[in-house]
Amino acid sequence: MLRVFHAGLWPAVGGEIVLAAAESAHLVRVRRARVGEAVAVLDGRGGVAEGVVALADSQAARVQIEKITRHPAPAPRVLAVGLPKGDVLVEIIRQATELGATGVQPLLTARAEVRLAADRAERKLERWRAAALEACKQSGNPWLPEIHAPVELTAWVKKIPKTSDEFRLVAALTSDAKPVSQCLSASAPQPLLIAVGPEGDFTSDEYALFRKSGFIAVRLPGHVLRVETACAVALASL
Amino acid sequence: MLRVFHAGLWPAVGGEIVLAAAESAHLVRVRRARVGEAVAVLDGRGGVAEGVVALADSQAARVQIEKITRHPAPAPRVLAVGLPKGDVLVEIIRQATELGATGVQPLLTARAEVRLAADRAERKLERWRAAALEACKQSGNPWLPEIHAPVELTAWVKKIPKTSDEFRLVAALTSDAKPVSQCLSASAPQPLLIAVGPEGDFTSDEYALFRKSGFIAVRLPGHVLRVETACAVALASL
Repeated sequence: MLRVFHAGLWPAVGGEIVLAAAESAHLVRVRRARVGEAVAVLDGRGGVAEGVVALADSQAARVQIEKITRHPAPAPRVLAVGLPKGDVLVEIIRQATELGATGVQPLLTARAEVRLAADRAERKLERWRAAALEACKQSGNPWLPEIHAPVELTAWVKKIPKTSDEFRLVAALTSDAKPVSQCLSASAPQPLLIAVGPEGDFTSDEYALFRKSGFIAVRLPGHVLRVETACAVALASL
Repeated sequence: MLRVFHAGLWPAVGGEIVLAAAESAHLVRVRRARVGEAVAVLDGRGGVAEGVVALADSQAARVQIEKITRHPAPAPRVLAVGLPKGDVLVEIIRQATELGATGVQPLLTARAEVRLAADRAERKLERWRAAALEACKQSGNPWLPEIHAPVELTAWVKKIPKTSDEFRLVAALTSDAKPVSQCLSASAPQPLLIAVGPEGDFTSDEYALFRKSGFIAVRLPGHVLRVETACAVALASL
């Protein structure tokens, strides 16, 4: 299925959407879409407009809309993860988007001291957000997850709004951690926050901070997982 | 935790293991292990020997054994996956090993026509097996999964031994597929075989072949998953 992104206002059924230059180029040059070909337009806010290519222009392609579906917003499901080195977060964001996370919060922790210069941080954030958008198109997730700028774990924990119905989990290897499958009721979808440590894990001080802030330690299935595997497994288990 | 691999016979507690050259070099040069440092030796067959570095030689390092544990063989859990392009299978094998798969079977399917020349195939297989071994050391999985050479799906399905207690699953996006969480009883661990399609998925003929061979179609959580995400999610769900 060909999917493109268009964040602006949509016309009614029968009308046309004019795609931005980057999306037009991707659709026409890379995916080689032709007039009449079926395509779905996502707005990243639950809207999916099915239609056909009306003009295969690589600068301003047009899609004629045949049907509009609005998917309800999913319950919040935020992945907070110790910022890994290199490009590992790109892969984590892709997987999180495929698995329906609504947000990803990179954390600066004692063992994830990846400091970024301001300009590089900005470019990284843009790259992460582009990866989420790309993964939405690839996976058909109609809700673009929010990718936050990295923050210090201690500052972040203080700022989490105190909503009573939110379920807070932190992945842990310690013996007091319960299997994640035993922690969740199969009942109504609940806002969820799951934290996964960086390479080298959270420190015991950091785990104490999590516990003090109402996080429950959960054990993921498998052996000692790399950060990216742990994130996919955590989101798939919820 | 420092972990090394040694497949040969082990001495009794108190004795020493002389590591092969590649493992010695990794331990001493890359991990910079010193005499007296704690290290675990895995044999890939359930054995874990805990000990300390007795000789930090980059050609033939020695580990003095203090304790030997034998982990029982896990129930068979084999991942069969449509051979993806490029190096994606390396990542799949790493994740499968972390998640405790006992075997990985790459499949040649209609939409995964990655044909390999014989010499390249041999090198690829070596690389895949090295990835499994590396992942065992990283994750602490005491059982090295068996990485099979790619085979045609049709030939493979015919050759699966007919054991009555084996649970056969195939990941599918079709509406008749049940959620994977509803398919498994939480009872005794059962031999499991799960098949995941290549990029572009299995064809409907291939799905028919799976059904004829006793495979149950299961739906994985999330949106349309890439092959590597689907494999991790499938193994984590079982």
